[in-house]
Amino acid sequence: MGVLRLGHLEVCVTDLDKTLDHYTKIIGLREMDRQGDRVYLRCFDEYDHHSLILRKHDEAGMAYAAFKVESAEDLNQYEAALKADGLAVERLPAGSQYKKGEAVRFRLPTGQLIELYDYMEQPGREVGHLNPDPWPKEKVGIFPTHLDHVLLGGLDVRENIRIFREILGFHLSEQVMGPDGETMVGAFLFRTSTAHDIAFLNAPEDNTMSHFTYWLESKSDIIDAGDILGLNGVPIEAGPDRHGITRGLTIYFRDPCGHRNEVFTSSYLAQADMPPVTWTVEELAPGKKGVFCMTLGGFPETFGTEHSKCF
Amino acid sequence: MGVLRLGHLEVCVTDLDKTLDHYTKIIGLREMDRQGDRVYLRCFDEYDHHSLILRKHDEAGMAYAAFKVESAEDLNQYEAALKADGLAVERLPAGSQYKKGEAVRFRLPTGQLIELYDYMEQPGREVGHLNPDPWPKEKVGIFPTHLDHVLLGGLDVRENIRIFREILGFHLSEQVMGPDGETMVGAFLFRTSTAHDIAFLNAPEDNTMSHFTYWLESKSDIIDAGDILGLNGVPIEAGPDRHGITRGLTIYFRDPCGHRNEVFTSSYLAQADMPPVTWTVEELAPGKKGVFCMTLGGFPETFGTEHSKCF
Amino acid sequence: MGVLRLGHLEVCVTDLDKTLDHYTKIIGLREMDRQGDRVYLRCFDEYDHHSLILRKHDEAGMAYAAFKVESAEDLNQYEAALKADGLAVERLPAGSQYKKGEAVRFRLPTGQLIELYDYMEQPGREVGHLNPDPWPKEKVGIFPTHLDHVLLGGLDVRENIRIFREILGFHLSEQVMGPDGETMVGAFLFRTSTAHDIAFLNAPEDNTMSHFTYWLESKSDIIDAGDILGLNGVPIEAGPDRHGITRGLTIYFRDPCGHRNEVFTSSYLAQADMPPVTWTVEELAPGKKGVFCMTLGGFPETFGTEHSKCF
Amino acid sequence: MGVLRLGHLEVCVTDLDKTLDHYTKIIGLREMDRQGDRVYLRCFDEYDHHSLILRKHDEAGMAYAAFKVESAEDLNQYEAALKADGLAVERLPAGSQYKKGEAVRFRLPTGQLIELYDYMEQPGREVGHLNPDPWPKEKVGIFPTHLDHVLLGGLDVRENIRIFREILGFHLSEQVMGPDGETMVGAFLFRTSTAHDIAFLNAPEDNTMSHFTYWLESKSDIIDAGDILGLNGVPIEAGPDRHGITRGLTIYFRDPCGHRNEVFTSSYLAQADMPPVTWTVEELAPGKKGVFCMTLGGFPETFGTEHSKCF
Repeated sequence: MGVLRLGHLEVCVTDLDKTLDHYTKIIGLREMDRQGDRVYLRCFDEYDHHSLILRKHDEAGMAYAAFKVESAEDLNQYEAALKADGLAVERLPAGSQYKKGEAVRFRLPTGQLIELYDYMEQPGREVGHLNPDPWPKEKVGIFPTHLDHVLLGGLDVRENIRIFREILGFHLSEQVMGPDGETMVGAFLFRTSTAHDIAFLNAPEDNTMSHFTYWLESKSDIIDAGDILGLNGVPIEAGPDRHGITRGLTIYFRDPCGHRNEVFTSSYLAQADMPPVTWTVEELAPGKKGVFCMTLGGFPETFGTEHSKCF
Repeated sequence: MGVLRLGHLEVCVTDLDKTLDHYTKIIGLREMDRQGDRVYLRCFDEYDHHSLILRKHDEAGMAYAAFKVESAEDLNQYEAALKADGLAVERLPAGSQYKKGEAVRFRLPTGQLIELYDYMEQPGREVGHLNPDPWPKEKVGIFPTHLDHVLLGGLDVRENIRIFREILGFHLSEQVMGPDGETMVGAFLFRTSTAHDIAFLNAPEDNTMSHFTYWLESKSDIIDAGDILGLNGVPIEAGPDRHGITRGLTIYFRDPCGHRNEVFTSSYLAQADMPPVTWTVEELAPGKKGVFCMTLGGFPETFGTEHSKCF
Repeated sequence: MGVLRLGHLEVCVTDLDKTLDHYTKIIGLREMDRQGDRVYLRCFDEYDHHSLILRKHDEAGMAYAAFKVESAEDLNQYEAALKADGLAVERLPAGSQYKKGEAVRFRLPTGQLIELYDYMEQPGREVGHLNPDPWPKEKVGIFPTHLDHVLLGGLDVRENIRIFREILGFHLSEQVMGPDGETMVGAFLFRTSTAHDIAFLNAPEDNTMSHFTYWLESKSDIIDAGDILGLNGVPIEAGPDRHGITRGLTIYFRDPCGHRNEVFTSSYLAQADMPPVTWTVEELAPGKKGVFCMTLGGFPETFGTEHSKCF
Repeated sequence: MGVLRLGHLEVCVTDLDKTLDHYTKIIGLREMDRQGDRVYLRCFDEYDHHSLILRKHDEAGMAYAAFKVESAEDLNQYEAALKADGLAVERLPAGSQYKKGEAVRFRLPTGQLIELYDYMEQPGREVGHLNPDPWPKEKVGIFPTHLDHVLLGGLDVRENIRIFREILGFHLSEQVMGPDGETMVGAFLFRTSTAHDIAFLNAPEDNTMSHFTYWLESKSDIIDAGDILGLNGVPIEAGPDRHGITRGLTIYFRDPCGHRNEVFTSSYLAQADMPPVTWTVEELAPGKKGVFCMTLGGFPETFGTEHSKCF
């Protein structure tokens, strides 16, 4: 009961064709449908209709991040609790969004738009649900299994974290403490059993998104993903590398509109009773292991400073 | 809220030293403590005190499988619901079990002993929780991250499945249908987001256990695990192979007392809203993909027929 | 100077279309050309025109195995030495074989036809030789890098081994000794720096071929190959497994005409000065490590007994 | 006949204990022996007595790179040919070097000392040569299989390349052309069937060494190596990454005295008849694929500019 997972994102793109090529041919998502300015995409292993909406727009950025909840009752309770907390909440009627039921939206204190919804049409996995093959015969590009998490930024993300923990029932897997050793400047939060469905980090600007992330099955897939990016001329911002925080293997790169993507694997099983991990600011400096464990020579200057603006 | 995961197993062994060597030197569990006839073990990545108890006994077999619940309130509610369902439930006082709080026990219709508990001492992960390394420097043996699931057998497992789904709130990831196409002869059930915390399969005898399973990080670890078993002269019953059911990579082998172990990885993220997968009996025959996808030449005769007796 | 490697094989097939599909769509070879009854194929990473010829015929089997030598002078010297050894040698003029220069052929004492040739047209690697990509963007099937070795059988292979070592300059990486501990019943021979370009094993019949083998880049590719075979309904005879002999990771399977294929990786660098490895018959019995290191429970009964007939 | 491979290196170190720890505990070489100021090391899979000599000295740098030849006759012929080419050649008597036979030494036009030798004691592989295990039970650190290659630098390396190709019989796998498109500024040369036993690149100073390299079995081992370096606090200079040149997966790092080490895998099978690959200077600029294929954002500034001095 409650939030199931990060269900989908809507991302605004200024060049739809080029960006669609990036997500379908290089990352290897499946195009599910088009409706007006929007293209609906998902990973081969997902069973809901879509996990990414690319929307043609004159400004790039994440439109909203949507979390699926288990029931209509969850939706009502969250709506009430968010209102009681003083947040402005908008209710979207069923049918107002393609293939989806009712939804509830609110803006975080740092400006990003968050949606909760309890229904999306389920075409089921691409391989079907009766005596299925392990995966489709036709693999394309990096071919991740599913959308994993999103990392949002703001000048002070503590209120975001409080809302996700106290109202939406997220658990804390890892936290980052500021220079005073007491002030939380980042948190990694989960509802599934992966290390994060969403994370927040202090950033130079409000209403920003660092990246959204696709899950790969295996360690060797990270190397293959790097090769596929190289073959297609997509510059790699960082990686292949081992994250200190969340312990996953990672590559950062950008889509043609500048949104940072991540491919990620080999993290750990997170659970509600796990003692959270704490990172102090000393281990986040260049040459320390907080952000990247492998590249101890220093992490990329771009990290955490060029969050894509949302609108 | 509710059941978190398969927390630990107690397994009876006739030769404690030899069996302990198997689990610590070949599988690579850490010995945490000894108390009388019992040795307490866990994987390097677990934060609770233990996930396996080896108990010296004159007969081998699984003593019980224990599931951790989130709170004392969960324990009370489950106890009441199990009683209301007509099951005989035993309450164990706090302190009666080493490093654990109160517990509730009941026998399944097929005879296995199941425990629920809400507290175990948490020494935390071996690498600590402050600016941790990704894993310990000293790797031993196969070195799995955590206990993953257990598969129990009985003449007719449908009542077990009903209890786990309706009373304990488990979700169904996959099911196996018998020759009539309608009767469920096996089910794979989860509370975490992995494909199963527990599974049940019809077996030639009641009160039997097919195997219990440790999770590996990555595809290549399955090959390494096979090599480590080979180097140590442990016969492999099946694998490395790809399961049809649950889609994981697998190796089956036995401990010195005959309990079947599995190492497992590369399965999928399971969630409460996923449409379950159904397997029909035709795909379980030798040469079909239901049990193993790779070995289409036929699956091992031993599978599903030599469940280890429990007592 | 001398023999470079196993350059190509000609294999006779009774159903050309079906067999071609196997090699191009499942194994992932590239079709280079067709001429009459013959289709010419190679791996993506090879630079000579072809490494496999499928020839339509009313009986399946290997027609010949061809080794490329470095120069015309090598060809002349080998021809003279083979004749001096009493073997019947046939010289094929340049142009008599598609895309190839002159060749020399002889039959081994166990009946297989062996060819030496010093020239084949070189279209170069598929990615080109000027600032190349690491590999082609379009991967198909298992997608091995190159033809690795062939294993031939006969009632007594000692004379074959002598000819390859003494006349053709092959080195011995590993040998298998019979029950008396003194009689060689198998040998693994190389000219490149891999563990074998050709191997010989005593078999129940003369003029037989156990299998021919394609090289994969990496450990994880063996798992992926198994999955691809499973997805395409190709029964796996053995593997994924670790060979004792030559130490490679392996999968055995058959093409639609019954020729056994192998995919193979993770062997060692062999060199002329290496002390050969010796296997005694005790370690070749079921449950021993001579053939397979992982599957200590016994190796498949089919191994070594169902060599495909050649003609 | 001729040169077999890069057999061993002697490297001078200013802090023997600390550097020995690096090679034995982090890289995972085996210490074979000590004699006075020298420690003799090798990889677990090598059969000759040693492949690395660490020598206590007041200045760090490579003392010499030694290539093993197949026979005494080879040694004599190379000595004569080198002299005929006008090089000053020194003959070292058998027994003058620990565990080795006679040797011939000469300095390259760019200053590095090269040795040829035809004999070293062979203790054999660590797992033995009779029914061997695939590898030792005790793995330590990164645990490479063998020494792979060395890359030497100088103001103009063309004469070095000529000597290795024309006199020592090395083959060219890849070459790098300077800005005029005609002048060779780097070459990758082999005698085994790997992409290089030695390479030369123009560098800002004569008598310099870029790095020496150990071979890993598999793609996933590169990730594991990165993790082991991270766990041990060894800064990574570059990687995990895919080289454009030679196509291998790579990590660069330094030993405590500043010598650059590389771990490397997943390159290709090189052969005498392969058409060489050519790289033009445009593809070597930051953001191009010549050096690294993955990191298209630019290669590390340190590459190729801080060669360790030799003496």
